Amino acid sequence: MDPEEFRRCGTDMVNYITDYMDTIRSRLPFPDVQPGFLREQIPDEAPFHGESWENVKNDLERVVMKGLNQWRSPHFHAFLPIASSFPALLGDMLAGAMISSPGTWTSNPVGTELEVSMMDWLAKMLQLPQQFLFSGGKGGGCIQASADDATFVAIISARAKVIKQFKDKTKGQVLDKLIAYTSEEAHSSVEKAAHLALVEIRCLETDDKFALRGTTLAAAIREDRKKGLIPFFVCATVGTTSTCAIDNISEIGPICEEEDLWLHIDAVYAGCACICPEYRPWINGVEYSTTFSINPHKWLHINPPCSAFWVKDQELINEPLSVDAMYLRVRSASNGVTMPDFRNWHVQLTRPFGALKMWFVFRMFGVHGLQERIRKDMAMAKEFEALVLADSRFEIVADVVSGLVCFRLKGDNAQNEKLLSMIDKSRRICITPSISRGIFYLRFCISVYTTESRDVVFAWEVIQHEADALLSS
Amino acid sequence: MDPEEFRRCGTDMVNYITDYMDTIRSRLPFPDVQPGFLREQIPDEAPFHGESWENVKNDLERVVMKGLNQWRSPHFHAFLPIASSFPALLGDMLAGAMISSPGTWTSNPVGTELEVSMMDWLAKMLQLPQQFLFSGGKGGGCIQASADDATFVAIISARAKVIKQFKDKTKGQVLDKLIAYTSEEAHSSVEKAAHLALVEIRCLETDDKFALRGTTLAAAIREDRKKGLIPFFVCATVGTTSTCAIDNISEIGPICEEEDLWLHIDAVYAGCACICPEYRPWINGVEYSTTFSINPHKWLHINPPCSAFWVKDQELINEPLSVDAMYLRVRSASNGVTMPDFRNWHVQLTRPFGALKMWFVFRMFGVHGLQERIRKDMAMAKEFEALVLADSRFEIVADVVSGLVCFRLKGDNAQNEKLLSMIDKSRRICITPSISRGIFYLRFCISVYTTESRDVVFAWEVIQHEADALLSS
Ligand SMILES: Cc1ncc(COP(=O)(O)O)c(C=O)c1O
Ligand SMILES: Cc1ncc(COP(=O)(O)O)c(C=O)c1O
Repeated sequence: MDPEEFRRCGTDMVNYITDYMDTIRSRLPFPDVQPGFLREQIPDEAPFHGESWENVKNDLERVVMKGLNQWRSPHFHAFLPIASSFPALLGDMLAGAMISSPGTWTSNPVGTELEVSMMDWLAKMLQLPQQFLFSGGKGGGCIQASADDATFVAIISARAKVIKQFKDKTKGQVLDKLIAYTSEEAHSSVEKAAHLALVEIRCLETDDKFALRGTTLAAAIREDRKKGLIPFFVCATVGTTSTCAIDNISEIGPICEEEDLWLHIDAVYAGCACICPEYRPWINGVEYSTTFSINPHKWLHINPPCSAFWVKDQELINEPLSVDAMYLRVRSASNGVTMPDFRNWHVQLTRPFGALKMWFVFRMFGVHGLQERIRKDMAMAKEFEALVLADSRFEIVADVVSGLVCFRLKGDNAQNEKLLSMIDKSRRICITPSISRGIFYLRFCISVYTTESRDVVFAWEVIQHEADALLSS
Repeated sequence: MDPEEFRRCGTDMVNYITDYMDTIRSRLPFPDVQPGFLREQIPDEAPFHGESWENVKNDLERVVMKGLNQWRSPHFHAFLPIASSFPALLGDMLAGAMISSPGTWTSNPVGTELEVSMMDWLAKMLQLPQQFLFSGGKGGGCIQASADDATFVAIISARAKVIKQFKDKTKGQVLDKLIAYTSEEAHSSVEKAAHLALVEIRCLETDDKFALRGTTLAAAIREDRKKGLIPFFVCATVGTTSTCAIDNISEIGPICEEEDLWLHIDAVYAGCACICPEYRPWINGVEYSTTFSINPHKWLHINPPCSAFWVKDQELINEPLSVDAMYLRVRSASNGVTMPDFRNWHVQLTRPFGALKMWFVFRMFGVHGLQERIRKDMAMAKEFEALVLADSRFEIVADVVSGLVCFRLKGDNAQNEKLLSMIDKSRRICITPSISRGIFYLRFCISVYTTESRDVVFAWEVIQHEADALLSS
C-alpha cells in the first residue's frame, strides 16, 4: 500500500469510524456469542497472497462487530470506563505513522520532552506537590502502559530500597520477611504486583464505607513488627474498583512517613476527578506518597495505553529499573539539562509516543472541558441514584461519589444474581456485578461520553422491567 | 468533537500522514536539537479553554517534526527497525475508536479470539511445533507490549516453577541460589528481567561469531552446580542486537532439556525472517524451548506494541500471573471451549485490541508479501556489504545474515568514534554504533520499507565522504 492508496483507505476508515459512532446506539452493547465462535468465521491460516482492502473491510461487520463488547455504547455501564476521544485518536494516528519510540531521549527527543511536559501539565491540573514535577526538583512522571505496571514498578522499587538497607543480609533473607499492605477492596493488580515481586501482602479490613483507615494500618504494622517481619510498602486506593471507596490518605500518609514505608497511591479512576477543585480533597495527604498514579485512559478522554505515574525522586525507580548497553547510549543527552530515558521507568524499551495524544486532548478539551465532562458524569450517576432510591425494592450499597452507582434488590444474593442474568439476557444494557463482604450487588457506571440522561432513564427502565418479572414470578 | 467533526479532522490527519510519507525523503533523518529544546516551544501548563484542531495542527511542524527521529526515513539506519505499515495503521485506527480491551474474554470476545487465531497463524508461518499452538494442545501465544515483557514473563514463570520444586525451603532461600544464563551479546532486557526477578544471571562468552555455544553453557552449569547454585533459566538469542548473531539453539536446547532448565528464545528481529523457509533453520531446536518470542513490531510490518510470545503450556505462565477478582469473573467463558483471559499472560489488565492490526497486515500483505519484504531487506544489506568490502580502508565486523551490516575503519576505536561523530554532524543519514569485546564499530541497518538500493548507495557515499575527510586530515 503506497501513500496515495492510504489516502483512499485511510479516508475510508475515517468514514467507517464516523458512521460507527453515529450508529453506536443501535448496536447491542455486548455481543451474543459463545466462546469459540470465531473459529468457524475465519480461515485457520494466513493467506499466501495479499488480499484487497475491500475484502478486509467487508469482514468488519461479520467478524469484528459480531463479537465486540461495545465499550462506546451509551448503554455500556460495565466495569469502570476505558476512555477515548477523537482528539486522542488523531494523536494516535500520527504517532502510529511516525512510530518513533521515546525509550530514550536519543531515540525520540520530542517524544521524551513532550512526555515530560505533559506529565508536568497533568501534575499541575491535579495540584500535585512540586516534588512530583520535573520542573520542581528530583521528581517526575511518565506514561505506564497500565495501572498494573505502575503498581508493579512502585513495589519492586520499594523492595530494592529496603533490600539495600539490610546490607548484612542476603536479598533472600530480607525477602522472606517483607510485608506489604493494601485494603481488601484494592484492585487485584496490587496482589498481583506483590506476587510477582515475591513479597507477602496483607489485604486489610476496611470501614463501613469500604475505605482503609489509619488505625487499621497502624495496628497491622505493629503486629507484624512484633513477629519480626519488615513492613515496607503500602498501596492506598483512591476510588476502588468495586464501589469507588476512597482510602483515608490523610491518616495513612503520616503513618507511612513515621514508619518509613513507601506509600503508593492507586487513584486510577477517581483520581482523574481531582482536576476539579471540589474533588481534590480526596488526595489530601498525597505529599506523603512516594509514587502516585491515575489513569487518563479511564476518565480523561485519552485512549489507552495511558496510565500516568509520578515519583518524588526519579532515582528511586531508575536505579532498580536500569541497565546500560552501549547501543542505547548514543549522542548523549547532556548539556546542562538532563532529560529522562523513559526505558528506565518500566520494563519496556520500545514504547509508544503517547504524549502526543495527551497534548491533543489537553489542548482541544482544555482543563475546563475535561472538568465539565467529569461533572456531567457525576450528575448522571446522581440521577441514577435518585431513581434507585425512589424504588423501595432496591437499596444503594455504597455512597455515590463518582460516576459509579452500586445497588441491589433488598433480597439475597441469589435473587440479585438472577436479576443480573435476566438483564444480561435482555442484552439492552451491559452492567457487571461485584461482591464486598459477602454481599453481591450490581454496578452501574457512566462509562462513555455518548451516555446522556435519557440513557440513564432507559437503563433504569430495563432494570425495573426485569425486576418486575423476577419478583412477580 | 462530534463524529462529523471527526470526519473532517480525521480526513485532515489522513492527508497529513500521506503527505508526511510522500515527503519523508526531504526530512532530516534525526533532528538538530539539544536536550531541553522543547520547554521554550510550548506553554508550561494546559490551556483552561479548549483550542481548535487548526491550532494544534499548525504546531505539528514547529513542535513535533522539529524534534523527531525520523524512523520512517529511507536514511534512518540506526538501532534495529521498528516496523509499521499502512494496513497496521488502519487496524489501529479502528481499535482506537472501539477501545475494547481483551484483558478477559468477557471484556472483548472477538479481541481475545482473534488474538488466539492470529498467534496460531503466525506460529504456522514460523513452522513452530504444534505444542505452541492453541489448536495444538496446552500451548498458545499472546501479544506482549514488548520483548522485554516477554523475557520478564518467561523468567518469573521459570522462577515460580523452580521455587515450587523446593517445598522444604523458603522462597528467599531458593532465590539466593538461583542462577540464569544468557550470552554477553544478549539484549540488556535479559539482564534487566533477571534483575527485576531478583535472580543472578551470568552473561556467557560467545564464539568468534558472537554466538553462544552448547559447550560454554554446559561448563557454566557444571561449575555453578558444584558451587551449590540452582541453574534454572537460559535465554538464547536468535539475532543479537549488536551484530545479529544467532545462538546455537540445536546445541543449547538438548542441554536445557537434560538439565531441566527453562529455555526462552529471544528471536525478536531475526526470528521474523524465519517465515522464509531459507532462514527457518535458525530456530531449529525451538522444540526444546518452553517460551519463544519474536517482534512483529520489528520486521513484520506491524506497528508496536506487538511482541509475539508463545508458551508450550499455558499453565506455566498463567499460574504465577493470575489473581482472581469477582468483578472480572463475569459471564463465564465456559462452554466446552475455553478461551484464554490474556490478563493472566502478563502484568497488564487493560490492553489494546492488537490482533486487529495483525489480521489486517497478514491479509493485506499475505505470507508471500511479508517474505518478499524480508528478502528485499536482506538483499540490500548484501549490497551495502559489497560496497564496504570494495573499500580496503574498511572491514566487516560480523557475518551479514540479515538486514544489518556491522563495519568499521581498519583503525582504532577513537578513529571510528570520530568517523561516527562526523557522519552524525552531516545529519544526512542516521546510524548507531555498538561495541563487542572492546571493539567499537558502526551498524548500518535496513530499517524501513521506504529504503531502496539508491539509498544504500547514498548512505555509503556519505560514509566514504566523511572517511575521506577524516583520513586526509
Ligand atoms: C483501582 C484500580 N486499579 C488498577 C486498575 C487496573 O487498571 P488498568 O486499566 O490500567 O489495567 C483498575 C481497573 O479498573 C482499578 O479500578
Ligand atoms: C535481541 C533483542 N531483544 C529484545 C529487544 C527489545 O525489544 P522491544 O523493541 O520489544 O523493546 C531488542 C530491541 O532491539 C532486541 O534487539
